[in-house]
Amino acid sequence: MNDSAAKEPAINVPLALDNISIVLINTTHPGNIGAAARAMKAMGLSRLVLVGPADFPSGHATALASGADDILANARVVDTLDEALAGCQFVVGTSARVRGVSLELVEPKVCASQILDEAGQAQVALVFGREDRGMTNEELRRCHLQVHIPTNPDFSSLNLGAAVQVMAYELRMTQLARQGGVELPKTKQMTHASQEDMERFYQHLYETLVQIGFLEHSSHEKIMAKLRRMYGRIRPDRVELSILRGILSETGKFAKDSSAPSEEGS
Amino acid sequence: MNDSAAKEPAINVPLALDNISIVLINTTHPGNIGAAARAMKAMGLSRLVLVGPADFPSGHATALASGADDILANARVVDTLDEALAGCQFVVGTSARVRGVSLELVEPKVCASQILDEAGQAQVALVFGREDRGMTNEELRRCHLQVHIPTNPDFSSLNLGAAVQVMAYELRMTQLARQGGVELPKTKQMTHASQEDMERFYQHLYETLVQIGFLEHSSHEKIMAKLRRMYGRIRPDRVELSILRGILSETGKFAKDSSAPSEEGS
Repeated sequence: MNDSAAKEPAINVPLALDNISIVLINTTHPGNIGAAARAMKAMGLSRLVLVGPADFPSGHATALASGADDILANARVVDTLDEALAGCQFVVGTSARVRGVSLELVEPKVCASQILDEAGQAQVALVFGREDRGMTNEELRRCHLQVHIPTNPDFSSLNLGAAVQVMAYELRMTQLARQGGVELPKTKQMTHASQEDMERFYQHLYETLVQIGFLEHSSHEKIMAKLRRMYGRIRPDRVELSILRGILSETGKFAKDSSAPSEEGS
Repeated sequence: MNDSAAKEPAINVPLALDNISIVLINTTHPGNIGAAARAMKAMGLSRLVLVGPADFPSGHATALASGADDILANARVVDTLDEALAGCQFVVGTSARVRGVSLELVEPKVCASQILDEAGQAQVALVFGREDRGMTNEELRRCHLQVHIPTNPDFSSLNLGAAVQVMAYELRMTQLARQGGVELPKTKQMTHASQEDMERFYQHLYETLVQIGFLEHSSHEKIMAKLRRMYGRIRPDRVELSILRGILSETGKFAKDSSAPSEEGS
């Protein structure tokens, strides 16, 4: 609120995202560049650097970007990784492979946290390798940290756009957690009624409510939606559901014994 | 280890992933089905259900699956969402939109945790809507829970395959966290030397080590890689780097004053 405070900002997390560049090396398929741009924009990242892309600009990249055109238009295209990294103070490599002299290797969440720690006060590059063979040893040696997305050991093949999506997502979630955080809810241990049983119950409930004249045509959809939401929150087990249906059956018998309410057919 | 224990297993997390179905409603682009299959397999999910896909099986889906052919081959294709959900006891909807009578709305991580709680003992469906307009109100009313991926408010457009990737990733990470977990590292507050300064230092270091006869041709690449890793771990600031370069300069002067070591040219 005063001048000196304005000169010494705390780590500004939205600003931090602006200090993160996504660097793609020798991308073969322009669609992957577009998908990366879309993933970036959806997660609040904006700075894309392309090292020797095979085909860019490209209509296919624009199509896959699906509206993230500004990311593509502002993308910096360079010939070498060193040009891409000039001015950066923290460089993170992504590679499924762990090679001879390996870097410190971290999970995406740990990586996102370290990147945001750095990006509050420095320029950070997050580097993705080629679709077919990732990053070379020489390129990984440019990095301070290597992130490993813990894929299925039997099928570690992650699409380039999907890898960018995962990392961009973790950066955004880490940013949001620093702004508030999310508590995990308690576990539930009931064996709930199946979806088919619930649909049969809703049908029975609906018929009974019409029968007793509670539902009128103008209101029934909204009321049924609210009843679904309530019973969805209850999540009855089979015994509880049979009690509820027993109540409906008895209500139906009572309604048949009485005269039909006149407003039903109105 | 005995029969009664075998009858009462604790929640088995790898088994839990097998109890989760990914349900895609009326997918227009077969490439998105392939991308979803690849994302699923890379994260250890296997059960795909397609509700009235526009084009399936499709060569484009197979191409984008990039080896996750078994997921496509085993995909269950049905006409209605109710068929897809038959046998399921917990249904989660994904939608960027929040409508009139809204479900309980949770973040992906909370959602993944609830799904894994349920999937240890029940069948769970995670439902994704159409590329252009997501899920209908009628479809969301089939769900117990709605997950919202917190995208950039100014650009919430997430590709269908990317949305499947994010949720499959969170399910896998939650599974892995339950099997061990990851601690976040401490933050660093130094202003580090830039990448260009570090490259100049490595070049200076390399030349000096050759000059003093420390490096021989057969070993220099591996030793330089290890030196890079060590100095990368140090991450010197500019002052520290100038000290290191001063040492190199003085070493170089000493080496020039002495006779060149004979083994350098061998």
